[in-house]
Amino acid sequence: MAGNSFGQIFRLTTAGESHGPALVGILDGVPPGIELSEDDFTFDMDRRKPGSNRFTTQRQEDDKVKILAGVFEGKTTGTSLAFVVENTDQRSKDYSDIADKYRPGHADYTYDKKYGIRDYRGGGRSSARETAIRVAAGVIAKKILKQKYNTEIIAFVSQIGKIKAQADLANLDVNFINSNAFFTPDPEAVEKFDQLLREIKKEHNSIGAKVTVVANNVPVGLGEPVFDRIDADIAHAMMGINAVKGVEVGAGFASVEQTGSEHRDQMRSNGFQSNNAGGILGGITTGQQIVVNLALKPTSSIQVPGLTINKQGEEVEIVTRGRHDPCVGIRAVPIVEAMLALVLVDHLMRNHAQNHLL
Amino acid sequence: MAGNSFGQIFRLTTAGESHGPALVGILDGVPPGIELSEDDFTFDMDRRKPGSNRFTTQRQEDDKVKILAGVFEGKTTGTSLAFVVENTDQRSKDYSDIADKYRPGHADYTYDKKYGIRDYRGGGRSSARETAIRVAAGVIAKKILKQKYNTEIIAFVSQIGKIKAQADLANLDVNFINSNAFFTPDPEAVEKFDQLLREIKKEHNSIGAKVTVVANNVPVGLGEPVFDRIDADIAHAMMGINAVKGVEVGAGFASVEQTGSEHRDQMRSNGFQSNNAGGILGGITTGQQIVVNLALKPTSSIQVPGLTINKQGEEVEIVTRGRHDPCVGIRAVPIVEAMLALVLVDHLMRNHAQNHLL
Amino acid sequence: MAGNSFGQIFRLTTAGESHGPALVGILDGVPPGIELSEDDFTFDMDRRKPGSNRFTTQRQEDDKVKILAGVFEGKTTGTSLAFVVENTDQRSKDYSDIADKYRPGHADYTYDKKYGIRDYRGGGRSSARETAIRVAAGVIAKKILKQKYNTEIIAFVSQIGKIKAQADLANLDVNFINSNAFFTPDPEAVEKFDQLLREIKKEHNSIGAKVTVVANNVPVGLGEPVFDRIDADIAHAMMGINAVKGVEVGAGFASVEQTGSEHRDQMRSNGFQSNNAGGILGGITTGQQIVVNLALKPTSSIQVPGLTINKQGEEVEIVTRGRHDPCVGIRAVPIVEAMLALVLVDHLMRNHAQNHLL
Amino acid sequence: MAGNSFGQIFRLTTAGESHGPALVGILDGVPPGIELSEDDFTFDMDRRKPGSNRFTTQRQEDDKVKILAGVFEGKTTGTSLAFVVENTDQRSKDYSDIADKYRPGHADYTYDKKYGIRDYRGGGRSSARETAIRVAAGVIAKKILKQKYNTEIIAFVSQIGKIKAQADLANLDVNFINSNAFFTPDPEAVEKFDQLLREIKKEHNSIGAKVTVVANNVPVGLGEPVFDRIDADIAHAMMGINAVKGVEVGAGFASVEQTGSEHRDQMRSNGFQSNNAGGILGGITTGQQIVVNLALKPTSSIQVPGLTINKQGEEVEIVTRGRHDPCVGIRAVPIVEAMLALVLVDHLMRNHAQNHLL
Repeated sequence: MAGNSFGQIFRLTTAGESHGPALVGILDGVPPGIELSEDDFTFDMDRRKPGSNRFTTQRQEDDKVKILAGVFEGKTTGTSLAFVVENTDQRSKDYSDIADKYRPGHADYTYDKKYGIRDYRGGGRSSARETAIRVAAGVIAKKILKQKYNTEIIAFVSQIGKIKAQADLANLDVNFINSNAFFTPDPEAVEKFDQLLREIKKEHNSIGAKVTVVANNVPVGLGEPVFDRIDADIAHAMMGINAVKGVEVGAGFASVEQTGSEHRDQMRSNGFQSNNAGGILGGITTGQQIVVNLALKPTSSIQVPGLTINKQGEEVEIVTRGRHDPCVGIRAVPIVEAMLALVLVDHLMRNHAQNHLL
Repeated sequence: MAGNSFGQIFRLTTAGESHGPALVGILDGVPPGIELSEDDFTFDMDRRKPGSNRFTTQRQEDDKVKILAGVFEGKTTGTSLAFVVENTDQRSKDYSDIADKYRPGHADYTYDKKYGIRDYRGGGRSSARETAIRVAAGVIAKKILKQKYNTEIIAFVSQIGKIKAQADLANLDVNFINSNAFFTPDPEAVEKFDQLLREIKKEHNSIGAKVTVVANNVPVGLGEPVFDRIDADIAHAMMGINAVKGVEVGAGFASVEQTGSEHRDQMRSNGFQSNNAGGILGGITTGQQIVVNLALKPTSSIQVPGLTINKQGEEVEIVTRGRHDPCVGIRAVPIVEAMLALVLVDHLMRNHAQNHLL
Repeated sequence: MAGNSFGQIFRLTTAGESHGPALVGILDGVPPGIELSEDDFTFDMDRRKPGSNRFTTQRQEDDKVKILAGVFEGKTTGTSLAFVVENTDQRSKDYSDIADKYRPGHADYTYDKKYGIRDYRGGGRSSARETAIRVAAGVIAKKILKQKYNTEIIAFVSQIGKIKAQADLANLDVNFINSNAFFTPDPEAVEKFDQLLREIKKEHNSIGAKVTVVANNVPVGLGEPVFDRIDADIAHAMMGINAVKGVEVGAGFASVEQTGSEHRDQMRSNGFQSNNAGGILGGITTGQQIVVNLALKPTSSIQVPGLTINKQGEEVEIVTRGRHDPCVGIRAVPIVEAMLALVLVDHLMRNHAQNHLL
Repeated sequence: MAGNSFGQIFRLTTAGESHGPALVGILDGVPPGIELSEDDFTFDMDRRKPGSNRFTTQRQEDDKVKILAGVFEGKTTGTSLAFVVENTDQRSKDYSDIADKYRPGHADYTYDKKYGIRDYRGGGRSSARETAIRVAAGVIAKKILKQKYNTEIIAFVSQIGKIKAQADLANLDVNFINSNAFFTPDPEAVEKFDQLLREIKKEHNSIGAKVTVVANNVPVGLGEPVFDRIDADIAHAMMGINAVKGVEVGAGFASVEQTGSEHRDQMRSNGFQSNNAGGILGGITTGQQIVVNLALKPTSSIQVPGLTINKQGEEVEIVTRGRHDPCVGIRAVPIVEAMLALVLVDHLMRNHAQNHLL
């Protein structure tokens, strides 16, 4: 209700601030009997971790997931699973100068107005550090999807600034995506992105990005009619990620200029002939590849001086210090995968609940 | 859970098919003491109603909202409010030829796969006729917002095909918007839209549209941290409207090409200096105008013959007969307003629940 | 949230007042493909109906359930099911004298304090007339349980005033229960109840009752750990029925005086050797018979003059006129069955959601 | 959904097993600005703690609550609050002999049947150790109630076996209750309880108990119509506590033998003249004292040998070793207070959400 839970049946509840003792997650509804160890989290936590390449925040965190409940002798028990990620590298003093000033483009102003109190250290609860818990939960969701349906979720950076990456959605090379600093499938884009980000960094500025996420081998029939269409729930999941300003499914905004005869995906006995729908019709999965694009704004944590006001309403200049990404879209890749996985597992369960009864 | 409810505290639950006896809504959490009569619904129901101009479905429905519960002596009682909209012009026979064929771009295939049974008359539960109930609920939500905070919600058509309408977001002429056949604020676009839709209609085709919705006089502080950010809930609401394929808040996908110094909205003592945020920072309203854009796909109900399969998996040709809009985006205007209003009232309540206690 | 919905996945939402146009229910999460006709409701609606014997309210209602959505060609579609029960015998004038006075033991005072407005006609939303919708929803739940697991739910009157009925829980004669005016399994109690109620009626008074409900052939494993134990959800369901003041599972309050060696139900290879648990251990069904007792208070709608205050806080005398039951517990029988059935189906679905995934 | 969350707006989510690393709680919806330190938890955690007197489990736990999130500079921030209680005295080996046998009266059998896997160490998730988290959350709820409305919640032991304690509900001596080993208000009962429990302990047996809880200074108007009546939510909360088999509100099961003229609480200008309602009419608080009784079964963890089956379905004898309470009802006192407090705060918020909007 107060916004810290996600999902209906497969339900993640989180707590934790950027500079508090730890981030905490409770995942309820996990099926029993799934093998799970703390090592399972390493790959995705590392992809999200700041400092993993030179264009992401230099803050060093171990980001080790520690399981506190819900696993017995290496397997999930079906009861609620709890895990923490400790904040080991906090350096609160870096943020002391913003206790009183509202950083433009951040949640400082709105949290203060909403609650009358604000943990100003590194953005407190509004910090993207919170997404570490989502990534951890996503690991479990992806494991379930993979084991049960061989469903595979792949996110990648498809655009930074004006530079677009090429991607063959039917043949994404996951190894390449995860081995370059930009999580992009396009070898040529790697160099261009590198060049662009060097410039942006030199200007102490930041730049937006587009992230694309697909899911392969999705069971048909996931999603509910009317309000909880799976595309609606995906939009909710994605727009809830820090910095996301837009979400498209399938043809997305290109649909505006399409005619009905162009847009509709005709079917033949071998299946759909195109995928403008992005794998979803009437809010329910078709079994085709799910395709979703996200727009991520450039972070407002930049060292270009800007105008703002302080708590007293006086105009002041601000320069955001600290260690920040020139392009936050890059680190969003595992977060986006996690959120799509959480939505899919939750809808699998919702579907099972109703349709397996009779 | 099965997708037919919307909102957490101010909660709409709906039922009803295109060609069943009636559409039904129960709205729970309505504050007591609000004056409400059946006439209050007329304006918005008429805007949504098919046949209100020559470019929307020719089906004639009275679309009269009848209140069954929750109102006593002209005022809401605080207990759950129920209302129905009867289906008076059903003509089931028009649809009999699609009982067995999956219309491309429709939910026919996915409903059949999900449930193993499908009310094929006019799309059944997946029909856009269902949105009549959302519009009715939105009338109550808009009334609350207007009375309590003078909050005003305005949606309009900002693009059809390649033709873009001009709009001065700070000075929208609601009367003009609601008096032209395209719900657009741009007098010059009216003619161009008219011309385009005549052509589309002549080709028995359809075309996509972009709809923009704004909210003025929004209280600061609405939205919850992390998952139920108000932009996430808006995205959920909007992507759940039939035909919507994309949602943007503020600068939206343009953010991808912006730098941080361009995007961040600086503040001075007279307030924010720009609105790339679309009125929302960290998922919480800033008090600025909320600005959201939607992409609506061209309807797949067209008379251009298309390929599909039938229930037996055989390839067949299909032509969708019946009365259909060449541009469904137009009729979405009151639906979009309704959904934004529902989100805002729900978040007002969520905010009050927690923050008015101490 | 505002209290008019019940269940998590198999979810009933209701609206309607005693003297409004109609009572309305939307049941979400109904599995597809269940045969359902309006006649299916008759038996239970008749059991709940006032006027069905001379000791229940003389108000005449047809209490015909009309399906508005969710059924196509005689089968449920999996989409939300809506139904109404019209109020045909309203006689509002009977109640006009209580518009200003708070009937002792009724919700008049609390509704006025909570909402500042009250539909005083027959109790408005707080009237037991509202339970007609629960009974209707229960019909569907019982049908699902019967078809899927042969689960059978039987409620009966086990005590009125000091007179206790004998019952052999292992061999309840449903036909006898449903063919006597008191829904009791004990032929000797029938006469004693009849005698007692004649006296109570002569005194223009009312009397309390105990109702017992059992479920046979319950699948093992229903219920969730910690908060949503199935006994907790049953207690929620039962205490939410008008007039209920107490709920016991299994040995109930007798457990207070038992020792551990008496209470614990030992197991042998042929199963449990006793049933102090009432079919539930650790909040999860054991597969044994579920046994629940309810205490129902005597209705406060009596013609013995009583003291109360009016809206202005002045002391006044009140005599409740209108048609009322001397023992409301009797008519509770189908309501109690309905609520238990709703809980069981919801928990079946919750169990399926999580445990059928892997 | 999977049962590990409680409350709608003021929402507690828990995880943790008896012998895992820690118990974890996330409390969402906490109002901002409440002073909170780890010391605030000591009093209630000590009351629940095993080993605090000679009739409760001898297991030694520090039961120190550690706050991980949601508090900044000594005040709640309005964002989700997380806390842990570490399991420091686990001694897993004590329980190794029950890995394969189902203890009668415990959840061993049902967890195994439900999940196919069971953390058998000390009952795992079904252990009453889990209630430590509820008590911790209750501390925060009681603090809010006390600060905002001077609402006070007092639970006490009113019966053990056949021995009943006397209690003057209008004048409960909290200091006396909390300073005797049985949390009872009756000095004479203390000795009798002591005597009884010595005997029970000597027999290696256990005994049931009745616990009464009251709330003073409760605001009028809390509770929702129909399903989420506050008495229904209280019943849900209480029946969800380990070992509870019955719940009564006000006159409870005594209502069965009352007449309407006895039961109804008449009103005069100085207020209600009696309290058979237990402070709740139509599911909504009247402002009178809330009075609730609970039946707690005798624990099945006794050293009297009993019959059961093992995982293979073979009959075996079992003696539950380990450190166990002869009367678990005693330690339930702070848990019962906590659950009532959680219900009241949640309903305060629900009431505010809807009724403070207009």
